[in-house]
Amino acid sequence: MDCKAALDASNGDMEGAVEYLRKKGLADAAKKAHREARDGMVSAYIHPGSKLGVLIEVNCETDFVARTGDFQQLVKDLAMQVAGVATTAYVSREHVPAAVIEKEREIYREQMADQKKPAQVLEKIIDGKLERFYTETCLLDQPFLKDGSGKVKIKDLVDQATARLQERVVVKRFVRFQVGEA
Amino acid sequence: MDCKAALDASNGDMEGAVEYLRKKGLADAAKKAHREARDGMVSAYIHPGSKLGVLIEVNCETDFVARTGDFQQLVKDLAMQVAGVATTAYVSREHVPAAVIEKEREIYREQMADQKKPAQVLEKIIDGKLERFYTETCLLDQPFLKDGSGKVKIKDLVDQATARLQERVVVKRFVRFQVGEA
Repeated sequence: MDCKAALDASNGDMEGAVEYLRKKGLADAAKKAHREARDGMVSAYIHPGSKLGVLIEVNCETDFVARTGDFQQLVKDLAMQVAGVATTAYVSREHVPAAVIEKEREIYREQMADQKKPAQVLEKIIDGKLERFYTETCLLDQPFLKDGSGKVKIKDLVDQATARLQERVVVKRFVRFQVGEA
Repeated sequence: MDCKAALDASNGDMEGAVEYLRKKGLADAAKKAHREARDGMVSAYIHPGSKLGVLIEVNCETDFVARTGDFQQLVKDLAMQVAGVATTAYVSREHVPAAVIEKEREIYREQMADQKKPAQVLEKIIDGKLERFYTETCLLDQPFLKDGSGKVKIKDLVDQATARLQERVVVKRFVRFQVGEA
């Protein structure tokens, strides 16, 4: 899709052509979900003192995008987020094993065992606690620490990068090592 | 154990005192295996181009030793070793799951299925292949790349550091991320 084709499609009207391209862009964004993100970068954050470190892999579609300052800043921010939130264990809630979720539900149920509330109310409370569990353990569900407002989620940060870079951006994996744990 | 005590123990003979201390040191080394290595450092190596990265945790007993250049050089060398050898998957052969070893043996057996050799000869060949598998996949069993002679194993490197630093030195864990793999 080049500019001439866009101008043709909007009968030579420049504003119309821009709008056409933007709409085209949005259509492409929907298609992106099926494209493969096989390039990207591996980045590390070592906290001063060297007792805590994070390694993260974030994928995009091309080496060209992987080399942009924009993408690299995102990866750096994500690595620092993982370092800053000790409870971070999974990329997203889809990555939490079913057995872990069931175990959490069990713990919540036991915590409220002596509360005389209707079963459906208890289930709603359990859902709420599970939601908090996701926010603590799943990177994409966490509020972005560096933002500070609590309103920007990591998921938003990644979505915004996808929109700006016009490529799929996927947090592939990370690890967080802290001396003395485990 | 101070120098005066050592001199007393060797009746004031300086050379004898040094020998006494060295023997004492060796005795301490044997004791070290039971001491806990809970301090240490986390270090990263990112290969130029940022498509490959390693995060490693190496433990020692005190923050004092963790801050020495000697210890930090060791950790850096180990991280680069893991980066340099794509097959590195375990810290030592003790960390390889029994199921993985059994699977390897099975593959070797199938590879030699049509060879008419006595069973005990085949088993010896399988043992040899398994030994090579350990050398490829287990960090401590690998020859130290940077040395180049092929005669220094990573295990030796760690043992030498233990002797110099007079503390237990333990490779706790590592990961190796390469963009596009898995």
